[in-house]
Amino acid sequence: MQFDTLIHNAVILTCNPGFDILREGWVGVSGGKIRALGTGPASGRAEARERIDARGGILMPGLVNTHTHLPMTLFRGLADDLPLQTWLNDHIFPAERTVIRPETVRWGTLLACAEMALSGTTTCCDGYFFAEAVAQAVHDFGLRAVIAQGVIDHPAPGVPDPALNLSVARQFCNRWLARSERIRPSVFCHAPYTCSAETLSGAKRLCEEFGLLFQVHAAETRWENEHLRSVHGASPVGLLARAGVLDERALLAHCVWVDADDIAVIAGRRTKVSHNPESNMKLGSGVAPVVEMHAAGITVGIGTDGCASNNDMDLFQAMDMTAKLHKVMRLDPIVLSAETVIRMATIDGARTLGLDGEIGSIEIGKQADLILIDTRKPHLTPIHHPASAVVYAAKGSDVQTVMVAGRLLVRDRRVATIDPEEALHQVARISGVLKNHASNRDLDSRGVAEVDHFERKS
Amino acid sequence: MQFDTLIHNAVILTCNPGFDILREGWVGVSGGKIRALGTGPASGRAEARERIDARGGILMPGLVNTHTHLPMTLFRGLADDLPLQTWLNDHIFPAERTVIRPETVRWGTLLACAEMALSGTTTCCDGYFFAEAVAQAVHDFGLRAVIAQGVIDHPAPGVPDPALNLSVARQFCNRWLARSERIRPSVFCHAPYTCSAETLSGAKRLCEEFGLLFQVHAAETRWENEHLRSVHGASPVGLLARAGVLDERALLAHCVWVDADDIAVIAGRRTKVSHNPESNMKLGSGVAPVVEMHAAGITVGIGTDGCASNNDMDLFQAMDMTAKLHKVMRLDPIVLSAETVIRMATIDGARTLGLDGEIGSIEIGKQADLILIDTRKPHLTPIHHPASAVVYAAKGSDVQTVMVAGRLLVRDRRVATIDPEEALHQVARISGVLKNHASNRDLDSRGVAEVDHFERKS
Repeated sequence: MQFDTLIHNAVILTCNPGFDILREGWVGVSGGKIRALGTGPASGRAEARERIDARGGILMPGLVNTHTHLPMTLFRGLADDLPLQTWLNDHIFPAERTVIRPETVRWGTLLACAEMALSGTTTCCDGYFFAEAVAQAVHDFGLRAVIAQGVIDHPAPGVPDPALNLSVARQFCNRWLARSERIRPSVFCHAPYTCSAETLSGAKRLCEEFGLLFQVHAAETRWENEHLRSVHGASPVGLLARAGVLDERALLAHCVWVDADDIAVIAGRRTKVSHNPESNMKLGSGVAPVVEMHAAGITVGIGTDGCASNNDMDLFQAMDMTAKLHKVMRLDPIVLSAETVIRMATIDGARTLGLDGEIGSIEIGKQADLILIDTRKPHLTPIHHPASAVVYAAKGSDVQTVMVAGRLLVRDRRVATIDPEEALHQVARISGVLKNHASNRDLDSRGVAEVDHFERKS
Repeated sequence: MQFDTLIHNAVILTCNPGFDILREGWVGVSGGKIRALGTGPASGRAEARERIDARGGILMPGLVNTHTHLPMTLFRGLADDLPLQTWLNDHIFPAERTVIRPETVRWGTLLACAEMALSGTTTCCDGYFFAEAVAQAVHDFGLRAVIAQGVIDHPAPGVPDPALNLSVARQFCNRWLARSERIRPSVFCHAPYTCSAETLSGAKRLCEEFGLLFQVHAAETRWENEHLRSVHGASPVGLLARAGVLDERALLAHCVWVDADDIAVIAGRRTKVSHNPESNMKLGSGVAPVVEMHAAGITVGIGTDGCASNNDMDLFQAMDMTAKLHKVMRLDPIVLSAETVIRMATIDGARTLGLDGEIGSIEIGKQADLILIDTRKPHLTPIHHPASAVVYAAKGSDVQTVMVAGRLLVRDRRVATIDPEEALHQVARISGVLKNHASNRDLDSRGVAEVDHFERKS
């Protein structure tokens, strides 16, 4: 056997259908794909251009973040602990008007890529404006992604005339259909309360024409649910079904306010769901009924949502949060086991994007999208079961090495493909503009003490 | 000005009564205490034996973990996703009988200390058996702590005859009353359902005699609440009040199942509460009504609980979880702001232990228990407000430098006081014994695949 890269001396969480775990395992990678795997001394017989000694660490499939707004790293922590409408109308929308341009979108996205890679995410599913710049940045960084152009029936960054929203989306999809093996274009309709039935169905037809994933926020807040029921006589999910957008190539983000009828509709159409526990918690939106959705056979992935509402993109924390949140909501420690949550963040996440034939597990023939966790740490000692360690103890910062399509993006916690210092500097510069923005003045002046106040004490 | 250590170029979260934040701040430390602080070039005029350039990072008081069982690092991840009684009776209790001895308690505690220090905790409040070994290990490591001998009316590790439980506790308290400036002894009664009224009041009298903190688990599970109400006609808190143990020097861990009457009792007696969100979530116990307790004026600190039920001791994650959990439970993003949660993990935590005159904020005259967060990271860029960054984006692994009583315990993420490799090795060795323990056989055999299975595929 001759490999480009051989990773050995690992505990391998395959995330295959049997959830097999290999002790003293090894994986051989060639041409960007997983070519062989096994346990024990077999690796000694293999030749490889590069050998990586996992030193007993955990090797698992790269994590899949099923809901992101990458450029919103620019707004991380801009406004917290506020009612949703105040947060959106007084802070996020004005900030978007102030700074969002293709150049700033690129820097925000590169920073997001560095953050994702450094915490073990190898694939994300994004929706934002200036999707061209988002896609290019993710491609350049080296991650895998579904990247969608946002569609909304209001003036938006880069789409001042909403009548053109679908044609802008079409142009983007056309350009990115075959431009990168790692980037799949997509269309993201903002929500059933900001997109008309015509916009929704037009976007869905566009996706069908190109064979793409259709995305939409759905049933995120109680307000949305009550508003749509009172205006249209249908739940958010019911309204989307009526618009004809729900099938197995549709991904619904959030699904917090769904009832048994909605769950039956989602399950019946084999529509996929992205669960975003931390965003839903921080904005006080509610808890999606994941256990019920699982019972109905719905595939549910995990997302972080954008950095304006979470405020980070660490899927390790999101896994921990997912497992614990549903246990406490149901007062039942058995639901959403570590294994179930790891599946959600890997193979089920891949399935929500239609990529489960290529990624989401360590199996021969799949893309070599792999992450290696350094377990030689106090908080990862002892390890009685690796799945437990991954969900309940490991942190994104324990990810030592990250590979996408056989290419190392992170080596020993250093980003190998871009200069992260430049991204840090550029994002700090861009977000600095917001400091002088009227709507944020209250945040900036709060808590800043004068020297004199302290000099007097000493 | 002449200091032992001068930390400069920091954003200082003082956690003082005004929650003042100093930009370009500096702190001068001498004799283990904070002697001066200020902003700007004043630091240039000061002389110091050691200068630490914070490089723009966030300097804040060391975090206070108000509920731990340090030696239980030995059981991290031993058994997850199980009903509480199965977890306790079939896994934790047998494991304790198998491995808990003074020597193993020492290694488990040293590992816990390394984990706590590396994630920014400088003070903890513990209860376990062989408290002598726990106290010695924490003292040797260099952290600050309240360390309690556990008391229970059943045979326990080191106390096979429960008739001797209070005399064992008395001996421990006597020995540690003046042995270390950083360690305060305490007594921890297990729970109102495992300790008789005589045991509870005897332990409380012992604490009063020496001026010590009295600790007890209270109202953790629905079962406990219903059981005590049916057997004794009183809630857990009511029963503790009846036993005469509730005053301002009593700390109740959990308080999940407390009603308005219980909250009024706790508030009226100025009793303190430790909130353990992650343990309560993971075990499916419920959510403590922290917002209501705050409204009643109760001081609430944050704890991680032991590693058998969390499974880590990272208070940064616990802060994030606390802020988000209560927002989603009340569907209100305004409750438990970042500032409130930081107070809970610092000055309020100190107040629950009776140590708020010495630690919990960066103020002149207080102990130099300080942590420095390296903010030059993708997930900490940009920082619009440092309190938001600490709660919603920073991780324990961002803590770069840790000082207790002016002594550096962690420098550039390396433990300076013990050899952590030895603790890792010893804990792995001790916990390895459990692999052969009958009650854990199911966990160990699960998921281990054979080489042949994979060789066939390739």
